[in-house]
Amino acid sequence: MLNERLNWRYATKKMDPSKTVPQDKLDRILEAVRLAPTSSGLQPFEVIVVKNAAIREKLKEAGFGQTQITDSTAVLVFAAWDNYTDARIDGVLALTEKVRGGASETLTGYYDRLKASYVPRDADTNFEHAARQAYIGLGLAMTAAAFEEVDATPMEGFDPAQFDEILGLRARGLKTVAILPVGYRAEEGDWLKGAPKVRRPMNEFVTVVE
Amino acid sequence: MLNERLNWRYATKKMDPSKTVPQDKLDRILEAVRLAPTSSGLQPFEVIVVKNAAIREKLKEAGFGQTQITDSTAVLVFAAWDNYTDARIDGVLALTEKVRGGASETLTGYYDRLKASYVPRDADTNFEHAARQAYIGLGLAMTAAAFEEVDATPMEGFDPAQFDEILGLRARGLKTVAILPVGYRAEEGDWLKGAPKVRRPMNEFVTVVE
Repeated sequence: MLNERLNWRYATKKMDPSKTVPQDKLDRILEAVRLAPTSSGLQPFEVIVVKNAAIREKLKEAGFGQTQITDSTAVLVFAAWDNYTDARIDGVLALTEKVRGGASETLTGYYDRLKASYVPRDADTNFEHAARQAYIGLGLAMTAAAFEEVDATPMEGFDPAQFDEILGLRARGLKTVAILPVGYRAEEGDWLKGAPKVRRPMNEFVTVVE
Repeated sequence: MLNERLNWRYATKKMDPSKTVPQDKLDRILEAVRLAPTSSGLQPFEVIVVKNAAIREKLKEAGFGQTQITDSTAVLVFAAWDNYTDARIDGVLALTEKVRGGASETLTGYYDRLKASYVPRDADTNFEHAARQAYIGLGLAMTAAAFEEVDATPMEGFDPAQFDEILGLRARGLKTVAILPVGYRAEEGDWLKGAPKVRRPMNEFVTVVE
């Protein structure tokens, strides 16, 4: 079931701009990202869904001209927290108390220890930790798109600083780590369409210690 | 479908050691990880599946005593490449040529540029890039486990250097980044079982630029 969908998907190289992903499919893809498990439930990233044509033209320039940025229905921009702060972690604690009903010493103690551990670290270390969590979300987005029979192209080949500038992310304490245009494959012009998937064989990828 | 499974799963806090995950379920979970999309198809990580009881006792000590490490059926250890090298990238190129049939200038040029870009970078930068890809795999493993109705506990709370030492990963150029015990929840003693899932509301997680 899942693996059938993972075998179906591929990093689409050419999208058909005349085909539009329905909003309900887009909503379910974003919901999968929102449900993605992250370290201590921090969800230390946000997703910017760029549909605007003019802004996507600018993003394409910052993305070395890759046409999926403008030929897709939307570009999902995964932007990780640039650092952990007391305020951000307190926000997660407050939400947890609200959803699960009331404060507890165990919960407060857990997030107190997390703040004591994370906040003094340098920003780069914290950003890298947040970026890893964002990649769990990226993986879920690719998976969800496959379930919706929506094509998607994971990309790291772009200028992150320019993306942050175009989308005004610096002021929000966010840094772009990966993008995922979602749309529909073009009938012609996609050299990767139909190519066999390349993966290391299981015995070169997994070691079992029995 | 997918989101129903993502809502079902949770980071299981107490597992029942008397229940064993069937091998076919474990195989499908590992296949999902193998199929996980990664940057330039590098798959820059491996998975160590630890079933051995004595070794898992040692891992539990290096994992601050967390009982899921020994009460699960197996611990999936996600170990990222410690660096990118010409040999590793050439291996991906060779596999791609083998699977897709023959060399091409386009393909060779692509991986030549990748080597020129990645290999001169410092090892930490390359390891962090590889670790992000491993987290895509971690996300897929958690998702696949949910499809198999298998419980799982993503963990970063362990001593990675000790894990690498116990599993002999240094000599293989691998560094543990995250672990995922897979098994079955205990009937009693899991404080998180049944608790409402905590996620930021969509409007605090997603920004739409129309």
